[in-house]
Parts: sequence; structure tokens; C-alpha cells
Amino acid sequence: MSDCASFCLESYLSEKKIAVEQALARYLDNPKSHPAVIFEATRYSLFAGGKRIRPVLCIAAWEALGGGKKDDDIMPAACALEMIHSYSLVHDDLPAMDNDDLRRGVPTSHRVFGEDIAILAGDALLTLAFELLSRPDLMVGIDFARRLQVINIIAVAAGMNGLIGGQVLDLKSEGQKIGLTALKQMHGLKTGALIAAALKAGGILAGGDAAALEALACFGQRIGLSFQIADDLLNVEGDMALLGKNTGSDAKRGKATFPALLGCEESRNLASRLTEEAVAALAGFDRKADPLRKLAGFIIARKS
Amino acid sequence: MSDCASFCLESYLSEKKIAVEQALARYLDNPKSHPAVIFEATRYSLFAGGKRIRPVLCIAAWEALGGGKKDDDIMPAACALEMIHSYSLVHDDLPAMDNDDLRRGVPTSHRVFGEDIAILAGDALLTLAFELLSRPDLMVGIDFARRLQVINIIAVAAGMNGLIGGQVLDLKSEGQKIGLTALKQMHGLKTGALIAAALKAGGILAGGDAAALEALACFGQRIGLSFQIADDLLNVEGDMALLGKNTGSDAKRGKATFPALLGCEESRNLASRLTEEAVAALAGFDRKADPLRKLAGFIIARKS
Repeated sequence: MSDCASFCLESYLSEKKIAVEQALARYLDNPKSHPAVIFEATRYSLFAGGKRIRPVLCIAAWEALGGGKKDDDIMPAACALEMIHSYSLVHDDLPAMDNDDLRRGVPTSHRVFGEDIAILAGDALLTLAFELLSRPDLMVGIDFARRLQVINIIAVAAGMNGLIGGQVLDLKSEGQKIGLTALKQMHGLKTGALIAAALKAGGILAGGDAAALEALACFGQRIGLSFQIADDLLNVEGDMALLGKNTGSDAKRGKATFPALLGCEESRNLASRLTEEAVAALAGFDRKADPLRKLAGFIIARKS
Repeated sequence: MSDCASFCLESYLSEKKIAVEQALARYLDNPKSHPAVIFEATRYSLFAGGKRIRPVLCIAAWEALGGGKKDDDIMPAACALEMIHSYSLVHDDLPAMDNDDLRRGVPTSHRVFGEDIAILAGDALLTLAFELLSRPDLMVGIDFARRLQVINIIAVAAGMNGLIGGQVLDLKSEGQKIGLTALKQMHGLKTGALIAAALKAGGILAGGDAAALEALACFGQRIGLSFQIADDLLNVEGDMALLGKNTGSDAKRGKATFPALLGCEESRNLASRLTEEAVAALAGFDRKADPLRKLAGFIIARKS
């Protein structure tokens, strides 16, 4: 009880996670797709667990700016972000990329369905995100201009100058010596861009003005980076049972990481500074932004 | 001159192809993406030739319904369709899928850039399509509701119940005995869905009513199927030099094709019937639809 005096992040996270998963199930509840295997493969990856950080951040940004109560006004954007995140993991795990057998404690998509179906399941999740964002029966309380703006922001963040660009930098830097600036740039694209887009999308849908959106993007870039530092630290120090994947795998691959470049202590300091900057970016927001402020701290304290 | 008495399809096609390629170059002229290789890989596949059939059909549908003269109102949709087509070819050619070394006479993306970059280049082209469709500086003459409708129609056609579903059926039917109904269903998804979407998108952007859109979709499904029959026939009978890929490859793989199921003559008859039905679907359209009518015939008469 004592932890939950004013606002209990744990309840908030678990409540939002359940709502997001219910919405995902609702939006993916139309198995008319022709070979059932592709439908199964998209469901397999989308429901293989995960913290649902991007959807939760999107919803928290929407609430911070006083977004309405109607679930189907914000959930399609929240779920589209999770679909894009999920597709990126399916493709990253492929033999031609990171060649991972395990993700969140279960076999990766290509280990279960074969490489061909895994590639297509990733493609399908990415496509489904944009189908969802443009569905005529959803987000009926949002004006079309804002919906279009959200599609654009998410597409840019997922593209060559965002998520995909970051993944290319990641592949190209394996086994190479890269400095802190390059490492920050890589993760800024690979993780930060979509997280910042999640926050901006929530803000846009809630009707936020330019200054609010700018603050949310700034918040997002900083927690995106601290999120990655926390991930790197967990890979070094984490508990394999909690993570559901092998620890120490980054070092084995010779991947550039924050702990490898800065050491664990300095990495933790950097993550803390980024969290402070993130919280400072929300100075102009009222108490409705408390979940976002708490989430910033949670991201570096998490154990999985 | 005699062939071109009233309307010269050849000039029309070459004029539109040039306009589409200029627009593609314009929309892809922002190489700020971080590792240059991903930008190069997307350009490589997008500019490796091709007939630009989907963009041309989209533009022809737009013109058939009296769409305006402003290039940037229709070209983003036309180019997005080509990007999606191009991504689907890059992924189809991968070792885990059809494992093709040659496409349009040049090495496939994964042969040039490696499998990892080819997967990401496909992802980038798909994402770029939706970025383009939602760009705030383009399609300024189109109202937001119609833009959103076009995004949805294209996403559905590219997804599990369209292009991707068709590719899964294709993979799963290799080496299997499938009947004519299953073959039609597969190509209806793999080729027909995106072609029908191209036509509907052009119609929607031109402000077409429900009946006109229905007629365009009907036209699209029929020429989509006749397009595939023509492809199959070219694979059996075509000139490898004109096609830029190996002929006879379908038979070698034991792929189900129209000629394999029906024989060449009956396949040609079916393609002709579909073309007639397609043209009949446009009965309510005036002379502005002549390019569409001629395109229907061209699709089954082409040599590459």
C-alpha cells in the first residue's frame, strides 16, 4: 500500500497492459485470412508477452493532454505501435539478422513457422498497423487531419530514418569499434524514434499543441535512450529467467553496448541523467502527466 | 501512325511510365538515411525497370473519373503502389522464399546487398509507401477522408487478406496439386488485390461514387487475373531475353500454373474472357476510360 500512496505505477502498467492486449485481440479477431498459418504466426508474436511499453506511453501521453475516454479513439494507435514493434522483433530475430532462437522465453517465429512465414508474418504485422490506423470504423472521435498526421509520424519513425535505419546501423556496427556518438545515434533510431512517435501520436490524438508535442518528443527521445541503456545493462547483469533470453549474448557477438563503452556504473549514471532530462521536459504539464513521469523512472529500474 | 489513329496506348504507357519514375525519384530524393546502403538498396529495386502497371492503372482510373491535373494529388498513391509491389518482389526473391538470383535481368537485391539488407530494404519500401500516402505536403487538393480511405484500401490489399495471403498460399501450394478454384483464389490475392486497389485508389482520389468504385474494382480483379495468366504463359512460351528472367522455371519447381492446369490454349481463352468482362464492367464510363479499356487488352498481349 505504501508504494501506492498517490499513484501506483504497477497497477497502472498492469491495467493498461490488459487493456492493450484486449484491444489487440479485438482488432486481430478476424481470421478470414486464407492460409490460417499467417494469422497464427502474427498472433504468436503479438501475444508472446512483452511489456507493451510503446502502447502504454502512447496512452499515457493521450491522458496527459486530457484525451477522451473512448477506447477506440486511442487504442488503434497504441496497438499499431505494438504491431510495428512486434514486426521489427520478428525480422531482427531472423537467421539473416541476429539469428536468435529465443525471444521472451519462447522459440522465435522462424523457429516455429519457418523463415518464409516469419518474414511474411513480420510484413503482415507492419501492414496491419497501417490498416488499423486507417480503419473507417475506429477513431471516429478524431478528426481526419490528426489521424493522417499520426500515420505519417509513425511511418517516418518506423522507416529508413528511424527504426529500419537503426537496425541497419546495428548490423553494420557488429564487430566494429564504434564510439558513443554513433552508439547513441543507432539507438536513437532503433529504439528512440518509435518511442518518441508513440508519445507524439498520443499527444496529437488528444489535440496537443506544437509545444506540447515537442515536449513529448523530447521526453520520448530521452527515455528511448535510457530504455536501451537499461536493456544493455540487463544483458550484462540480468537474470536470464526473468529476461526469457540469453544474457551475455551482446558481449559474445562483439556488439557495441553502453556498458562495453562506458562501463556499468557510468552507463547507469547516463541513464539517470537522461531520465531527469526527460522528466524536466514535462515541466509544463500538470498532474495528468504523473504516469509519464513515473514511467520514465520505471524504464531504468526494470528487471526484464 | 495507323495504330495510333484515336488513342496510342504505347505513347500513353511510355509517357505515364516516365512521369511515375520522375515522381518516384522526387519522392525518394532525400538520402538523409543513415547508412547509405539502405537508401541504395531501396533505389536499386525501385529503379530496376518494370512496367509500372499498378501506378499507370491508378492514374488511368483517376483520369477516367475526371481527376484533376495536379501531379502531386495522384502521384503519391501511384508511387506508393509501386513501392509495395517492389517490396513484395524483394521479399519474394529471398532465399527463404523463391530463392531467385535474377529479376528483370539484374541480380536480385539479396544477391547484391546480402539477405539482411534485402529484408530491410523490403521493409523500408513498404513503410515508405505509407509515409508517402500520409505526407502533409502532398495531395493537398484531396480531402483527408478520401486520403484515409485510400490508405486503408491499399493496406488491406497489401495485407494478410491480399498480397501477403496470396504469397502464403503460393508457398504452401508449391509441389502440391491444386485445382483451378484454389489457383484463382491465390492469384486473386497475390496479384488481383493490389491491382484492384490501384484502380479503386485512383477512383476514390478523383471523387468517384460507390458504383464507379465497384466497377473499377470489378475491372481490376479481372485484369489482375488475366495479368497472371499472361505471366504464366510467358513463363512457358516467353523469350528469356525480353523477360529478364529464366523461362520454364515454374514447371521446374512444380508450381501450379494456369497452363499446367488448363493447357496454353484454354489459358489464353480464359484470359480473353476475363478481359472482355473487365471491359464490360466499364460500360457506364465515357471516353475518358479508353486508356483503361486498352490497358486491359495490352495486359494479355504483352511480351514481357
